[in-house]
Amino acid sequence: MSSIKGIAASNGIAIAKAYRLEAPDLSYDKKDVENPEQEVARFEEAMDISKQELEKIKNHALKTLGQEKADIFSAHLLVLSDPELIQPITDKIKNENANAEAALDETANMFIDLFKNMDNEYMRERAADIQDVTKRVMAHLLNVTFPDPALIDEEVVIVAEDLTPSDTAQLNKEFVKGFTTDIGGRTSHSAIMARSLEIPAVVGTKEVTASIQKDDMVIVDGIDGEVILHPTEEEIAKFQQKQARYEEKKEEWAKMKNEPSVSADGEHVELVANIGTPEDIAGVQNNGGEGVGLYRTEFLYMGKSQLPTEEEQYEAYKTVLEKMEDKPVVVRTLDIGGDKELDYLDLPEEMNPFLGYRAIRLCLERDDIFRTQLRALLRASTFGNLKIMFPMIATLEEFRQAKAILEEEKANLLSEGKEVSETIEVGIMVEIPSTAVMAKQFAKEVDFFSIGTNDLIQYTMAADRMNERVSYLYQPYNPAILNLINNVIEASHAEGKWTGMCGEMAGDEIAIPILLGLGLDEFSMSATSILPARTQISSLSKEEMASYKGEILSMNTAEEVVEFVKAKAALQ
Amino acid sequence: MSSIKGIAASNGIAIAKAYRLEAPDLSYDKKDVENPEQEVARFEEAMDISKQELEKIKNHALKTLGQEKADIFSAHLLVLSDPELIQPITDKIKNENANAEAALDETANMFIDLFKNMDNEYMRERAADIQDVTKRVMAHLLNVTFPDPALIDEEVVIVAEDLTPSDTAQLNKEFVKGFTTDIGGRTSHSAIMARSLEIPAVVGTKEVTASIQKDDMVIVDGIDGEVILHPTEEEIAKFQQKQARYEEKKEEWAKMKNEPSVSADGEHVELVANIGTPEDIAGVQNNGGEGVGLYRTEFLYMGKSQLPTEEEQYEAYKTVLEKMEDKPVVVRTLDIGGDKELDYLDLPEEMNPFLGYRAIRLCLERDDIFRTQLRALLRASTFGNLKIMFPMIATLEEFRQAKAILEEEKANLLSEGKEVSETIEVGIMVEIPSTAVMAKQFAKEVDFFSIGTNDLIQYTMAADRMNERVSYLYQPYNPAILNLINNVIEASHAEGKWTGMCGEMAGDEIAIPILLGLGLDEFSMSATSILPARTQISSLSKEEMASYKGEILSMNTAEEVVEFVKAKAALQ
Repeated sequence: MSSIKGIAASNGIAIAKAYRLEAPDLSYDKKDVENPEQEVARFEEAMDISKQELEKIKNHALKTLGQEKADIFSAHLLVLSDPELIQPITDKIKNENANAEAALDETANMFIDLFKNMDNEYMRERAADIQDVTKRVMAHLLNVTFPDPALIDEEVVIVAEDLTPSDTAQLNKEFVKGFTTDIGGRTSHSAIMARSLEIPAVVGTKEVTASIQKDDMVIVDGIDGEVILHPTEEEIAKFQQKQARYEEKKEEWAKMKNEPSVSADGEHVELVANIGTPEDIAGVQNNGGEGVGLYRTEFLYMGKSQLPTEEEQYEAYKTVLEKMEDKPVVVRTLDIGGDKELDYLDLPEEMNPFLGYRAIRLCLERDDIFRTQLRALLRASTFGNLKIMFPMIATLEEFRQAKAILEEEKANLLSEGKEVSETIEVGIMVEIPSTAVMAKQFAKEVDFFSIGTNDLIQYTMAADRMNERVSYLYQPYNPAILNLINNVIEASHAEGKWTGMCGEMAGDEIAIPILLGLGLDEFSMSATSILPARTQISSLSKEEMASYKGEILSMNTAEEVVEFVKAKAALQ
Repeated sequence: MSSIKGIAASNGIAIAKAYRLEAPDLSYDKKDVENPEQEVARFEEAMDISKQELEKIKNHALKTLGQEKADIFSAHLLVLSDPELIQPITDKIKNENANAEAALDETANMFIDLFKNMDNEYMRERAADIQDVTKRVMAHLLNVTFPDPALIDEEVVIVAEDLTPSDTAQLNKEFVKGFTTDIGGRTSHSAIMARSLEIPAVVGTKEVTASIQKDDMVIVDGIDGEVILHPTEEEIAKFQQKQARYEEKKEEWAKMKNEPSVSADGEHVELVANIGTPEDIAGVQNNGGEGVGLYRTEFLYMGKSQLPTEEEQYEAYKTVLEKMEDKPVVVRTLDIGGDKELDYLDLPEEMNPFLGYRAIRLCLERDDIFRTQLRALLRASTFGNLKIMFPMIATLEEFRQAKAILEEEKANLLSEGKEVSETIEVGIMVEIPSTAVMAKQFAKEVDFFSIGTNDLIQYTMAADRMNERVSYLYQPYNPAILNLINNVIEASHAEGKWTGMCGEMAGDEIAIPILLGLGLDEFSMSATSILPARTQISSLSKEEMASYKGEILSMNTAEEVVEFVKAKAALQ
């Protein structure tokens, strides 16, 4: 059996033939044509096919992704009908005997160069549209496949170097059974999307694109992080059984949907979800989430040409709060910078963006942006159970400054006669080592903590979690991390406050017994992890897990911790 | 009084006229000349002046910097005598009526392009030599000043955007009274060099180059981090007094040269120096250093075309150990990567180099490099009191692996019949938060700790110390940092081990009282900070400082700590 190991990014088994998602080779030769009329016809045909495809994608997007995404493709269709673009191309073919590829490329580039340097956001977006559409038409002229994940209409496993957010946004779960990529880790964007879509995925294989051809039969084992190449009938049967067992487990989990999250010895914890948009609420509800532990508001700011208005934000926050019906919703204020850029903010290039100008550091300086978000949140607060949390807090001064701005905006709104909830809790992300160390001091001033393990681990170990050369140091079970987590939880309880966790670690089956023993109050995770976590917690004694605390915190290595927990928490 | 605030990088006051160190504008017009013979003469004159200058710099370098640096200029002189370069230039002038600037530039560029793409290190270095020399000749042709810090022969204050290591290597203390730069911080290379040369310096001013013209009178106050522009007679007198007071203080300090480092209540600590090369030992001895707390071995690897051999390293280590005459010498193994690159290693580009593949992470993978260094160290160990320390240790496994390789090489050397000291202590840098948190576990296995605060602070606060946007977060006195330091010291003492500190913080007058109270055993700093530190410690009661420990560690902010220490330790 030939197989490739990777990182298990999303549970489940997928068995299907490979669909290679890759950028097509659009290089062409410029040459003179003998029959320009015929060349124009060839160009027009490529245009027609492109239009039909775009219509199809647009309708698909409208059904599955909503009006806003569909509008993108309407804009693309407009480009294809624009005589200002088409006329010069056909002229070039007729007057200069240019071949269609050259006529298209040169004309399009002229417009793209013209528009993209304009000091007008709208025109710059048109440049991007023209570029997208030109590529599609060019692919048809050259007769090469232009990959359209949205148009897949048979069962496949997607094989790609990486998936972009827009690729994943187009995936149709009915046909895309799983995916596997060369790069990425458990916390990369594509992995998070896979879990949110409940599509099995193995990422970070380094070599799937080099080993798998189009239409090869492939098995993606998202449970154990393995990709099987050219499986035999026997192997397929074996994995079908594994798949069936996983489906059974899922049915077991489904029974927990309306149950509370209670340990075997009767201790209640909160199992809540991480979300990115109001649309994610459906998944939270389907998976029995008891609230939202992390609403990442960045998506409101991304993929746009300007900052979202107070009104746009208000609508989004209100929707989430209303839909969650008084269940807690923890909203994280803008965490931009670092690896997340916004073109329209024009942030400085940094040598170490993860150690740079981002999140609260940016918001405290650009408080115009920050105040708009806080006003929108405060106005929406009356529609549900809002908690506000500040990201990347490193010092008490930063928290005090952020809180003061919040209070100012609250006073402003009240004086404008607006209603604001009187019971909003205000907390912080604990994702910087200094804050974890200083938890005792912070606990006197914040209402709650939420531990962001993705960042906390990378800073504590001084290892970029996106850098494969040092990925062995990304160790959630390292006793250093567990000691910091313990320090935060103990500090919060001493002041009668609570601690949640919203990093990937909160939904991890090895971490859950430890975190339960350390007394974590709230576990926030991908919605699809909630039911397995609830099932696991129902079989664990919190008292027993707490009795191991001293021993675990004194261990030497992450490996020792994993061995120990596997034995004590009955994990294989 | 018009003044600019900056970062006090090196103590003292400098009063002199400004010398602007900046890259000259070497742009020229290409044109035909009417009298080629005359043009050749002009070219030859520029060559002659350049040669005379280079001879002067070479002799100066030989006296102040040693043979190796002087050889660089010998190589430059060879280029200026090379007929293979000169002939084509004069031919071009004579045959093509080219002006000398164009003939020089075009010919030199041809050779540079040719050499720099060769797969031969020696030829690539020749390309760099030709480039350097060509610039000098071009400057003379164009009659613009080519700045030669080594040729300064009157008292000046250097004003520059930044100083490169090679700029600082050329400074003559007799004439260069101080310097001030737009960029840089207390831990940047130019700041460290300034302290090592004992030249007053104010860095990170952001704007000195925009505000100071050539020959303007300038005062650099390296004590309070201020640059005074166009001072009046009165102001000059005032700063001359301040300068005199500082000189008096220095005389006070000098009395401490042969004294032990003892607190007012009779507790001994060790005051040792950070060094980069064997030449730095003179400074350690002149300043009464009780040993070397950090020997940065990177300089052996830098500015070269290939890795240093075992023999080269052995000679360097032996020299340092012998010169230090049985005083402790802590050698840090190679800490390359991050912001320190080696061209010949071809390290990968990283998004966050400070969180990347560097130091021990690289040495454990490239153990060929590591073993060569360890063999050289072990062989030199019989010549003095060697202690070996590994940088960037994040997990116990890394330490165990590094130690095992050291033991293997020791066994190899013994079986080859070589002598190795039996009393080498093996310790680690504590510069990653995980290691500071896990100090209790580490203390059972290492012989000593040395806290590297420059890195520890940036990781603990998640703020790149080179990034000005977040420099406000580089907080040595943040209680989080102090708690981690305390954890390390307590853990080491519980196991009968010792803790040193080799970051900038160890020589800081606000940090010293705190560190003394926390029980730090060894303070390693710039050699020039040793005597002021010894003087300060002699006036402090360790018992009193220790009594403030609980209070300081519970404080909320760095600001509170600074206020408190200033009051308690009688600092203004």
